[in-house]
Amino acid sequence: MHDFRSDNVAGAAPQVMTALAAAASGTASPYGNDPWTARVTERLRAIFETEVAVFPVATGTAANSLALSALTPPFGAVLCHHEAHITTDECGAPEFFTGGAKLVPLPGDHGKLVPETVTAHVARAGVGVVHRVQPAVLSLTQATEAGTVYSPAELAALVEAAHANGMAVHMDGARFANAVARLGCAPADLTWRAGVDVLTLGGTKGGCLAAEAVVFFNPAMAEDFGYGRKRAGHLVSKMRFLSAQLDAWLADGLWLRLAAHANAMADRLAAGLTALPGVTLAHPVEANELFVGLPAAYAEALEAAGYGFYRWDDGTARFVTAFDTPAAVVDGLLDILQGLKEKA
Amino acid sequence: MHDFRSDNVAGAAPQVMTALAAAASGTASPYGNDPWTARVTERLRAIFETEVAVFPVATGTAANSLALSALTPPFGAVLCHHEAHITTDECGAPEFFTGGAKLVPLPGDHGKLVPETVTAHVARAGVGVVHRVQPAVLSLTQATEAGTVYSPAELAALVEAAHANGMAVHMDGARFANAVARLGCAPADLTWRAGVDVLTLGGTKGGCLAAEAVVFFNPAMAEDFGYGRKRAGHLVSKMRFLSAQLDAWLADGLWLRLAAHANAMADRLAAGLTALPGVTLAHPVEANELFVGLPAAYAEALEAAGYGFYRWDDGTARFVTAFDTPAAVVDGLLDILQGLKEKA
Amino acid sequence: MHDFRSDNVAGAAPQVMTALAAAASGTASPYGNDPWTARVTERLRAIFETEVAVFPVATGTAANSLALSALTPPFGAVLCHHEAHITTDECGAPEFFTGGAKLVPLPGDHGKLVPETVTAHVARAGVGVVHRVQPAVLSLTQATEAGTVYSPAELAALVEAAHANGMAVHMDGARFANAVARLGCAPADLTWRAGVDVLTLGGTKGGCLAAEAVVFFNPAMAEDFGYGRKRAGHLVSKMRFLSAQLDAWLADGLWLRLAAHANAMADRLAAGLTALPGVTLAHPVEANELFVGLPAAYAEALEAAGYGFYRWDDGTARFVTAFDTPAAVVDGLLDILQGLKEKA
Amino acid sequence: MHDFRSDNVAGAAPQVMTALAAAASGTASPYGNDPWTARVTERLRAIFETEVAVFPVATGTAANSLALSALTPPFGAVLCHHEAHITTDECGAPEFFTGGAKLVPLPGDHGKLVPETVTAHVARAGVGVVHRVQPAVLSLTQATEAGTVYSPAELAALVEAAHANGMAVHMDGARFANAVARLGCAPADLTWRAGVDVLTLGGTKGGCLAAEAVVFFNPAMAEDFGYGRKRAGHLVSKMRFLSAQLDAWLADGLWLRLAAHANAMADRLAAGLTALPGVTLAHPVEANELFVGLPAAYAEALEAAGYGFYRWDDGTARFVTAFDTPAAVVDGLLDILQGLKEKA
Repeated sequence: MHDFRSDNVAGAAPQVMTALAAAASGTASPYGNDPWTARVTERLRAIFETEVAVFPVATGTAANSLALSALTPPFGAVLCHHEAHITTDECGAPEFFTGGAKLVPLPGDHGKLVPETVTAHVARAGVGVVHRVQPAVLSLTQATEAGTVYSPAELAALVEAAHANGMAVHMDGARFANAVARLGCAPADLTWRAGVDVLTLGGTKGGCLAAEAVVFFNPAMAEDFGYGRKRAGHLVSKMRFLSAQLDAWLADGLWLRLAAHANAMADRLAAGLTALPGVTLAHPVEANELFVGLPAAYAEALEAAGYGFYRWDDGTARFVTAFDTPAAVVDGLLDILQGLKEKA
Repeated sequence: MHDFRSDNVAGAAPQVMTALAAAASGTASPYGNDPWTARVTERLRAIFETEVAVFPVATGTAANSLALSALTPPFGAVLCHHEAHITTDECGAPEFFTGGAKLVPLPGDHGKLVPETVTAHVARAGVGVVHRVQPAVLSLTQATEAGTVYSPAELAALVEAAHANGMAVHMDGARFANAVARLGCAPADLTWRAGVDVLTLGGTKGGCLAAEAVVFFNPAMAEDFGYGRKRAGHLVSKMRFLSAQLDAWLADGLWLRLAAHANAMADRLAAGLTALPGVTLAHPVEANELFVGLPAAYAEALEAAGYGFYRWDDGTARFVTAFDTPAAVVDGLLDILQGLKEKA
Repeated sequence: MHDFRSDNVAGAAPQVMTALAAAASGTASPYGNDPWTARVTERLRAIFETEVAVFPVATGTAANSLALSALTPPFGAVLCHHEAHITTDECGAPEFFTGGAKLVPLPGDHGKLVPETVTAHVARAGVGVVHRVQPAVLSLTQATEAGTVYSPAELAALVEAAHANGMAVHMDGARFANAVARLGCAPADLTWRAGVDVLTLGGTKGGCLAAEAVVFFNPAMAEDFGYGRKRAGHLVSKMRFLSAQLDAWLADGLWLRLAAHANAMADRLAAGLTALPGVTLAHPVEANELFVGLPAAYAEALEAAGYGFYRWDDGTARFVTAFDTPAAVVDGLLDILQGLKEKA
Repeated sequence: MHDFRSDNVAGAAPQVMTALAAAASGTASPYGNDPWTARVTERLRAIFETEVAVFPVATGTAANSLALSALTPPFGAVLCHHEAHITTDECGAPEFFTGGAKLVPLPGDHGKLVPETVTAHVARAGVGVVHRVQPAVLSLTQATEAGTVYSPAELAALVEAAHANGMAVHMDGARFANAVARLGCAPADLTWRAGVDVLTLGGTKGGCLAAEAVVFFNPAMAEDFGYGRKRAGHLVSKMRFLSAQLDAWLADGLWLRLAAHANAMADRLAAGLTALPGVTLAHPVEANELFVGLPAAYAEALEAAGYGFYRWDDGTARFVTAFDTPAAVVDGLLDILQGLKEKA
């Protein structure tokens, strides 16, 4: 099957697999006291050009929820876009990890929040009123669930709105690599220089097997994180196998090259699709996801040909490209539709 | 370093690595809807000779805590040996996952509980009294933290005491393979035929990278487990990489051969050590762990030679062998002590 | 101050105080094993014309949250009106008690939900999908936060939508007495005959000091409730003092007479206000709360005269009458505005 | 029935009832913004001779659990005597409120801990080790569950052991009044001057209906307490009715006079019982509880005569006196046994 359903249907990058194989023999101290984990921290320090506290975990849900639980008390509120993964697709994990904090879904075009929405919510949230959950975290997704990206300036304005109201800022970076690759700016510009406090950096979708890193730009915030991670069953004993993935993925810019490829395949697909009559983009294509209005005949033809993608009742379809999507598969998909158009 | 500190300092078995490499390319459905995961369930069905519901997760702490949370309400009590990993080494993970159930540590020689201890506790626990947490689970560790094993008859008697008092039975099987390999009986005899309700089957210590399976022998008990796993961030998206490990490990009895090797190395070490004057076994060696009274001169000589192991103030030392411990390393260790003895 | 801010600024009814005084001497078994508590259950059985399981607690937030925690697993969703007290004014108590279930605020005119809203939400909620919280409870408020009431037919339709989708139905009845008094129908018609599973019956606002009762119409659902209540610190040791309040309040229809008075005062106030130019009702007045569009001059005159009520930026004001609001105080308020009008 | 089962079988003191009646009419701001609550804080400031932050709640379980949740993170351990109410009789409430912290029961004669036990536990607790729950709170009960009291010097030594190890100190003062009345020292000497951080001061057993106060001697520790209390459903809306009880109870030393009476009745009972052959005290009688070895014939005679008290299988019986226990009832009990002795 030519599968565009998600970037988690992909396997793992060869460089990651090679590193894993190399890590398999010999003894190593468990629980992160190993050279691979130390190297990951070093790499992230260099990549982000600042001190960081780094915690590898196996899933994005864990990374997000653990990060949030470090930023909010149980009586806190986590503001996020209403389509954010943390509020729609994690079965209440943030609520579980935080001891019952409340996720507050906010509206915004193309998957993005704007500062005014944040400020307006806080203004009516009852800050200091004991009957109300207290705004504690602003969680931003970069790249967003709509396949768009925040610019550094957009981020900085959002962070300012959050910080001005005493909120910490979390970034769900399941596709952070795609955003960096697209914007071409320094990772620091999209995170701590814009004021982001904690990033959950996703490796899984980008070419790892199962590896994410929670990255604190203010290590003091991470003081208790190790206990929370252990207590949640997310401290892997043979940590080298988690860290070896990240180590290879972060080495020599591989993570950005892989993301750039996924982005390029999304662009290629978008260019081909929008050249067809009746196909419209629901959102700008700024990372590796496309949301398109797709005529039913097209959708059915692709399904008949074995292509995987998501369709909604309203005629929208989602295609996600990955670090290893072959250009030929994209072109094959487009050929089918092109053929259909010519027949019509 | 020749490292006997734990079996989690070991790497991964070559067969597991090969399987992982083979799983790395191509697309696959995420979240367990893949052939590897289906195969793991099939294998466990065959190994345990019964219907099972299987949930792979990455850590033993997660496996234990999720299993317990399926068996106890928040107001329940989980009875366990006072040295059980769940109560001493998981930073309160069971309390977190269960919504605050209480772990009740009970005494027992050589890491093992006996039915009388369970029954006596329940008798004074205030069953039905609203002020008291209610005995809900008996958690047994097989092999135990003391490196001993329960026989099928011992298990059956314990389970009977638990079931007679309305408790479910969980088995922490981080080293279940070692117990099966030692006892030579059917896996079913050590679990559901003895009445065990849920097993957390450990693959990590036995040769996987990070893979455990929660195995329900009564699938009806697992009805909500999937939600709990997701919510705890333990549903790995590229599940094939977790399942491929277990698939290879369980294939053709590899898991038992690896465990048998670890056990044999423990026996070899025990035989050599107890032949030395002044060395005593604190517990029978029935799996892959040795607890020995070790004269300080011996301990210091080993440390000086770079051998890793744990020492306590009372003169006890712990050595753990692994699936890949070379006989030569065991013999080298013994040679050092033998030399010391001859000099003395 | 003539205080219309809320019905919780009122004191307690003389009959309740008398009963409390009578309960103060002599010994009684603690924790609800006393004649007062037995009598409360008997009274509610008679009032609701069915078997009930009854649990008195001291606050409405506790009553709501404990009831919800009996109906939803931690991975469940509780659907409610977006202005429901449980989602806006309890500082996340339901999340705390349920182990992190998610409250889903739904829209609806005049504080009321309609079945279509419930059904539409469930249709897109991902029932059975492990990534999504699962719709578990529909929570309805009677009388609503907008001072309106659901008719038995409206309730039945909502309950049907909930039950058809596997959800239990909770009713927040902080002002249930006002609804019954207004509608004049049997309490059973507004609860179990319409399919409601659990009612939190509010006594505090209606003339008690601090007394609510969680009433289960299906006692089997309450099996574990006692543990949850104890564990939350809501099992009062000298329970007689909680139950004596409810006993007196429920005796001989006092609860309905007091509610009818509060309703009548609301009507009186509404009649007087709407006779004034420029005053509009935001919602029908069907219980003891008024939401009115109030010209600023009127609002300021009332504040200057020492009347308490809530004002919002949009010009809306809220007035709440209580079981003991004197007609003279209502008339005095109206006189002030009438005088203002005549001057104008 | 002449009921010595517990001090919670008693009613309420007349002065408390009078104050409650006086509070019943007129309007007052809800949620603690009322004169009664302000007065309670003032009284406690004076009684403890220092700044305090005060939070009235309705039950001791709530007071203890909320206080503990302000002192420990979820990954913390709460050290307490193995018979402490918080670990034996609150159905896991501290675990619930703290998000799953672990209660560590420690041994000690006559219900009392000694510093060496605390220090020894911490030494082996794995401080700083991520696998272990971290000692966060020492909870002391004053008067103890065994009816004994800690002297100021004993308390200071225990607090020192706790503070030296980074733990906060909580005092469960359900019977604090009895301890103060017995020792005759300043309340400050038994609390903050000895280093206690938070006291849960029990009014219920001492003559209130249902009123406890959480008293922080370091108000900074209480910063978030209001949210926790609300979220747990323990913020009573008509707070005046909770505070009026405490206000009357604390006025003019009433709380100590009532406690002194209960203590005197315990002494009277102890003197009479120990004058009988075969009756032994299991613990010194230092508050209002007696634990006695009671010959079966005596126990049966008392039960036959309608006296209430607790008996255990080992022949121990518990008698608890209350603020209103009549001397004549004590003497009547003793007469029965005296008659039995003379017959024998």
